[in-house]
Amino acid sequence: MKKTINKQIADIFVRIKEKKPLLHHITNFVVMNDTANLTLHIGALPVMAHAKEEMEEMTAISNALILNPGTLNAEWVKSMKIAGKKANSLEIPIILDPVGAGATTYRTKTNLNFLHNLRLAVVRGNSGEIGALSGAGGKVKGVESVEDIKNPERIAQKMAQRYGTTVVITGKRDIVANAKDFYYVDNGHELMATITGTGCMSTTMIGAFAAVEKNYALAATAALATFGIAGEMAAKKSNGPASFRVALLDSVYNLAPEIIEKRAKVTKV
Amino acid sequence: MKKTINKQIADIFVRIKEKKPLLHHITNFVVMNDTANLTLHIGALPVMAHAKEEMEEMTAISNALILNPGTLNAEWVKSMKIAGKKANSLEIPIILDPVGAGATTYRTKTNLNFLHNLRLAVVRGNSGEIGALSGAGGKVKGVESVEDIKNPERIAQKMAQRYGTTVVITGKRDIVANAKDFYYVDNGHELMATITGTGCMSTTMIGAFAAVEKNYALAATAALATFGIAGEMAAKKSNGPASFRVALLDSVYNLAPEIIEKRAKVTKV
Amino acid sequence: MKKTINKQIADIFVRIKEKKPLLHHITNFVVMNDTANLTLHIGALPVMAHAKEEMEEMTAISNALILNPGTLNAEWVKSMKIAGKKANSLEIPIILDPVGAGATTYRTKTNLNFLHNLRLAVVRGNSGEIGALSGAGGKVKGVESVEDIKNPERIAQKMAQRYGTTVVITGKRDIVANAKDFYYVDNGHELMATITGTGCMSTTMIGAFAAVEKNYALAATAALATFGIAGEMAAKKSNGPASFRVALLDSVYNLAPEIIEKRAKVTKV
Repeated sequence: MKKTINKQIADIFVRIKEKKPLLHHITNFVVMNDTANLTLHIGALPVMAHAKEEMEEMTAISNALILNPGTLNAEWVKSMKIAGKKANSLEIPIILDPVGAGATTYRTKTNLNFLHNLRLAVVRGNSGEIGALSGAGGKVKGVESVEDIKNPERIAQKMAQRYGTTVVITGKRDIVANAKDFYYVDNGHELMATITGTGCMSTTMIGAFAAVEKNYALAATAALATFGIAGEMAAKKSNGPASFRVALLDSVYNLAPEIIEKRAKVTKV
Repeated sequence: MKKTINKQIADIFVRIKEKKPLLHHITNFVVMNDTANLTLHIGALPVMAHAKEEMEEMTAISNALILNPGTLNAEWVKSMKIAGKKANSLEIPIILDPVGAGATTYRTKTNLNFLHNLRLAVVRGNSGEIGALSGAGGKVKGVESVEDIKNPERIAQKMAQRYGTTVVITGKRDIVANAKDFYYVDNGHELMATITGTGCMSTTMIGAFAAVEKNYALAATAALATFGIAGEMAAKKSNGPASFRVALLDSVYNLAPEIIEKRAKVTKV
Repeated sequence: MKKTINKQIADIFVRIKEKKPLLHHITNFVVMNDTANLTLHIGALPVMAHAKEEMEEMTAISNALILNPGTLNAEWVKSMKIAGKKANSLEIPIILDPVGAGATTYRTKTNLNFLHNLRLAVVRGNSGEIGALSGAGGKVKGVESVEDIKNPERIAQKMAQRYGTTVVITGKRDIVANAKDFYYVDNGHELMATITGTGCMSTTMIGAFAAVEKNYALAATAALATFGIAGEMAAKKSNGPASFRVALLDSVYNLAPEIIEKRAKVTKV
């Protein structure tokens, strides 16, 4: 009998706990503490490192590379490229979070450069960011999507085909697309939009799942469902966004495969 | 009938929620997460960006620029100058937080350089920092004021006149001075002094209010009263400084104009 | 009558509150907020500063220097060296946290360079990091120790003798060794291993105690016992790692000398 998708998701979750993959982050200053903690709570190991002197060596011992140019500058971008090339040469999955693409030319160009010169396992952005990178419109104010793109499914899949990657657009309903499949994820809670870094955290989550599951569209879907379930659980223990953030991290740690299997709201198209 | 000052403050607060101004921060590593979250909770949008390649473009789409050289180095200071010049050319208000001025020559000089070469909407510091910048004495140990200046009102106003800015000295009683007016703010709670970053957070708060109110002395006063009220509310839900910090951010999010109008303790002189 | 060791520890704790030492941190981006807050909660003053232009001046006004190259790059390492030389010339204690030594050649070399060229009051690492620096083996994955060294007491003491320092290996049972003495600390809680930065925080704690107590082995022991007691208290108020972190910081703030004297589990060998 074929496993249900919810069972598959729960199984990937368990595999993270067993394998404790190392997630090499080159990420922004705002979320480093949150994403390092999240990495530990889901059962993986975090390392935040950006020095060119250690880039290849650090990437080489990692199980996934997360590139998040949210507070980018030229030096950090260089390190991201070195790490990315190394990851590609060793078949280590790279997850790109194109924070603020569309807000400035520099951000758009830097992220397009990654898309053109690296093989990315997953690109995760909000509607405005993916819109900017695909040339489909959308609008970004700072790092927030303030105007959604139309036909996000078509845009995500076209982009996935063009760059040979999996494209994730997170929002009220998350969309995951590779060249041939779509997944929708309907887990989550509106409080997740009230704190900074939930986007970055979902990217880290995707890194943890992609480190142990080669079907990256399934891995991303599993990550988003899992993170969304934690958000739903956390919302019940919150008095506002900051106590929600604490509860969200607690909930990720307290998740069990049975909960995930029962609560994941995933649709494969 | 003329609006009371408390009503004016509540109205500015509402305007932030309506306009969702973008606050461009070039700020220190210690508080980036807190100030980004605070920006969201008060109803504005944060962006933390420092790359020279995107400075002018990012500042140009912002509604206020916050310069906080708390973990400064030469490269970041250059970016602050580029952003500052751009903000001045577009009449975007700049808020300066001269963290640790007085502690080292480099900090004092860097902040004086900003005062001399940029038109600043508001400068907010503790007693020691403002004392160091005005040449009036005061003492800073690291980033904390350990010896208060005398006659802070006179010093703040003289500095405001000299540089054509609004000067804020935060402490038990906050003082806001421009060339002709004074405001006192008596909201707040002593637990605010037990965590790092309340100064930086109050500067971000001033940025949010100055983005939607051209009377910068009034904007700063409104920001401090609002933040102080959140502190008073949070103190009741705390077991110590860390749970206070969580409650403080929750309280900012949960504030309503009626609460602010009722509880603001502001005196105009 | 000679004071018991628990009484000595409580007395050092009280001295921190009285003297409010300034702890100059050159530390990693992940933990800056946590360690700054911890510094305040234990009763000291934090400053995070890395600009070469102010290194000597900032170090000169400090009472301890904490070097934590967790997110190192060449520029930051240069600043650490400048600060370290200055601290040595003024007899200000330096605490080194060799984050991720053993994970990459660059990290190992950088930290060995500090050991060879600076007089360090205390070096605190996990088993893998100390193993890598002493050449005794151990294994580090990212920044986590994943394989403990054998005979940690002998390795710590040999390293202490070789470099004229105090060596601390934190773990379930903490080991503190200088050239002639050993201390064991059995305080703490397993939840401390579920969040990022407890290692870095314990290093900051050692900095606070070493700033007011010249017997650095005793200071480190006192710091670890104190932090461990806070962890034990916090565990009772937690629903998971994030609420534990909040409770841990609250508990540090709420500690009293009587609690420490009563609960410290320290063995001198």
